[in-house]
Amino acid sequence: MSEYSKVTPEIVEQIKAVVAPNRVYTGADINEDFSHDEMSIYGKAMPELVVDAASTEEIAATMKIAYDNNIPVTARGAGTGLVGACVPIAGGIVINTTKMNKILEYDLNNFVVKVQCGVLLNDLAEDCVSKGLMYPPDPGEKFATLGGNVSTNAGGMRACKYGATRDYVRAMEVVLPTGEVTRFGSTVSKTSSGYSLLNLMIGSEGTLGIITELTLKIIPAPKEVISLVIPFETLEDCIGTVPQFKKNGLDPQALEFMEKAIVQASERYIGKSVYPQKIDGVEAGAYLLVTFDGKTKDELDNIIEEASEIALEADAIDVLVADTPAKIKDAWAARSSFLEAIKAETNWKDGLEMLDECDVVVPLDKIAPYVEYVYGVGEKFGLRIESFGHAGDGNLHIYIIGDDKISVADFKAKADEFFDDIYAEATRVGGLVSGEHAIGSGKLDYLAKSVGPTQMKLMEDIKRVFDPKMILNPGKVCYKL
Amino acid sequence: MSEYSKVTPEIVEQIKAVVAPNRVYTGADINEDFSHDEMSIYGKAMPELVVDAASTEEIAATMKIAYDNNIPVTARGAGTGLVGACVPIAGGIVINTTKMNKILEYDLNNFVVKVQCGVLLNDLAEDCVSKGLMYPPDPGEKFATLGGNVSTNAGGMRACKYGATRDYVRAMEVVLPTGEVTRFGSTVSKTSSGYSLLNLMIGSEGTLGIITELTLKIIPAPKEVISLVIPFETLEDCIGTVPQFKKNGLDPQALEFMEKAIVQASERYIGKSVYPQKIDGVEAGAYLLVTFDGKTKDELDNIIEEASEIALEADAIDVLVADTPAKIKDAWAARSSFLEAIKAETNWKDGLEMLDECDVVVPLDKIAPYVEYVYGVGEKFGLRIESFGHAGDGNLHIYIIGDDKISVADFKAKADEFFDDIYAEATRVGGLVSGEHAIGSGKLDYLAKSVGPTQMKLMEDIKRVFDPKMILNPGKVCYKL
Repeated sequence: MSEYSKVTPEIVEQIKAVVAPNRVYTGADINEDFSHDEMSIYGKAMPELVVDAASTEEIAATMKIAYDNNIPVTARGAGTGLVGACVPIAGGIVINTTKMNKILEYDLNNFVVKVQCGVLLNDLAEDCVSKGLMYPPDPGEKFATLGGNVSTNAGGMRACKYGATRDYVRAMEVVLPTGEVTRFGSTVSKTSSGYSLLNLMIGSEGTLGIITELTLKIIPAPKEVISLVIPFETLEDCIGTVPQFKKNGLDPQALEFMEKAIVQASERYIGKSVYPQKIDGVEAGAYLLVTFDGKTKDELDNIIEEASEIALEADAIDVLVADTPAKIKDAWAARSSFLEAIKAETNWKDGLEMLDECDVVVPLDKIAPYVEYVYGVGEKFGLRIESFGHAGDGNLHIYIIGDDKISVADFKAKADEFFDDIYAEATRVGGLVSGEHAIGSGKLDYLAKSVGPTQMKLMEDIKRVFDPKMILNPGKVCYKL
Repeated sequence: MSEYSKVTPEIVEQIKAVVAPNRVYTGADINEDFSHDEMSIYGKAMPELVVDAASTEEIAATMKIAYDNNIPVTARGAGTGLVGACVPIAGGIVINTTKMNKILEYDLNNFVVKVQCGVLLNDLAEDCVSKGLMYPPDPGEKFATLGGNVSTNAGGMRACKYGATRDYVRAMEVVLPTGEVTRFGSTVSKTSSGYSLLNLMIGSEGTLGIITELTLKIIPAPKEVISLVIPFETLEDCIGTVPQFKKNGLDPQALEFMEKAIVQASERYIGKSVYPQKIDGVEAGAYLLVTFDGKTKDELDNIIEEASEIALEADAIDVLVADTPAKIKDAWAARSSFLEAIKAETNWKDGLEMLDECDVVVPLDKIAPYVEYVYGVGEKFGLRIESFGHAGDGNLHIYIIGDDKISVADFKAKADEFFDDIYAEATRVGGLVSGEHAIGSGKLDYLAKSVGPTQMKLMEDIKRVFDPKMILNPGKVCYKL
């Protein structure tokens, strides 16, 4: 797309006139962070100009200038993505939304909360808890923005019972690529009023419009919560137990599987040991971490009993109950630190972490054979592989980690070959390329292989409907630059 | 769109060659039913040819012939729609999907069921119950097809707790306007794999592709269910009670409000009286019908107690408990017969029922003032107005009914003026044009006024992406012929 224009000094002045001048950055004043997300292997690219937007009006005005001048624009939240979705690979303008961080209004007649796009998940979650409420989506990365969460349809731990971010978006304010401001959806829980442009925006990774405000569904906080840590000898036993909970009418809030190696890495990282390695002489090979919620202590006691029976019948070595907030926090601390733990043990080369990941989602009964398949393929490549995932919804995170002995080029080549194989297998068993991390630029080829040319063309043409000049976050999701 | 071609004898022969000849109808052999849906006021139009499709392959082959020859195609389920969405207003071919009525496969590892598009909601619901399962969406019309339910994102009684049809669609097989067969989604509960074409299809009323197969989420059937009939003196008291249930942590499965006049019409229609008109000398003006579900009898007993306290504190006249399947059935029979009861008391003129309806959805706290507003407007027109609705999700059904004294033309003119006013008010209070009945051709003008030209243009251009020749169900949802 060589016909994009550059950000000239005149355009800088135009933008400074619609945004406060001290929130417009160019050249050496731009923080290097804006050139990449959390997965640096997908490349770095500096924008020509960064706007720290403080309002929808500023974003709309900036977008209008970019539209009139054919300049690429990439919206960015906290930059915690893992697929390069916020990397400005065509240059141009980055709109940083993290200053739009106000929780605007709770409406308890309709159980919704209105927020600016740059509010951090963690801030909304804590604010809700302080009011006896819950915002159910609970992605692992708590310091992402809600705009980012919606743009990737982030899933997280509680998707098992409560669904993904998509299920909690009632309405949004959006700046379209022309600079026009519009609203999709409404403060209602059901609608059949034309094509769902709201749902099209969710998971579109900032390529169709810039989300500036969100109306999100919230619920009363569950009164009682407990977690169980359940060690098994093998991963197969561990994952095989999962469908039994649902079949027996139990509805866990969260259901995670973890292999021993990654639990140990995580415990090293946080400096705390919670997961038993050996019980009565039996070595644990994998763990389930299960959380249940309910209305009363009695209800939860019954659930613990039923769940323990189910687990022990399925050859669990033991069942450990975390029934206080402190114990629950400890049990989850290891799980929440996996990515950081992996990163802490990862080598850097040429300014890039030797780390790549995949985020496939497969039917629940395919998890165990799929993970086994992945390790089989991985052996061929002689790279370190770690996996963990949401056993309750089939979403797996598989990491490959390079070491001192390999060059970046070789690592990337091996990663390509490895992922090619395991993505194809995920598609073959009825899965999809991404459960929650999305496509960005990093996973575009795999999406294309998985859904085929007809669907890729439909997506690219839809992109063109919203963005005829193709200036908004170019080269992401459905087409390459 | 005068450039559409007619169905010539040669094309009839081509279609008979790809579908069994005895399932292809033309001319006088076409049943008049195919010219309209349940709301005849939106016009009648006979197709030139009807295919009783028995497979995806037949639909794909028919569609390909239509595409090559520029002939309009309208897919039709059971024809129970209320907005003219399945009326072939451009002529051409109607594809009747009701023979594609097989429940194909339950997958209890993933809690999904695969069905053909023509399976009736009632058949799936009963089959699920017989297996200890539940398909949660529960639209009032039980004899619609599931393909139709998905095409309108049908809501229904249990949307309050369980959400609308959208929330239960995991994957679908679709015949595109070119005749190509594709699949959107997968047997997974969470995904971030490109734009959600699956969610774009849901609620698109057969304008983007023909849904031929569905993979639907099911859940274990709740073990215990009870209903409460709660009479109030006024509609305002009745609706004002609604948010209290949720605020107190109760999560009703269904929550309907009904005015006295329509309850009486319904009881006349079904010949059974369940709803008390007077309690201890106090006249009931409106009723709440509330259903709760849970795991144990104890849990439900607690809920009944809490709910009764909430209701009586909110000035309910009484609380009647329906705690056996027979009593629950009776309590719901009146609610389920509203449309038929209204129709039974409606006059016909010029072959059209003097009946029109609107299906707005508004924020919960706007229901009472909105209904009051509607009656105020209605008084000006001197037509009979009946309303009922899903108090738990803000979705209202407002009917206007003509009498002997008015001509069809005058009735339509008054209806237009009445609806113009009340749709504008719904938009003003933050609502949307349709909660669950969709847009079709009947509500297109109101949708355009509600969402504005930018969104209508986005929708029409998306339609063009899927259907460049604009042959699939022309003149519906987002553009006029």
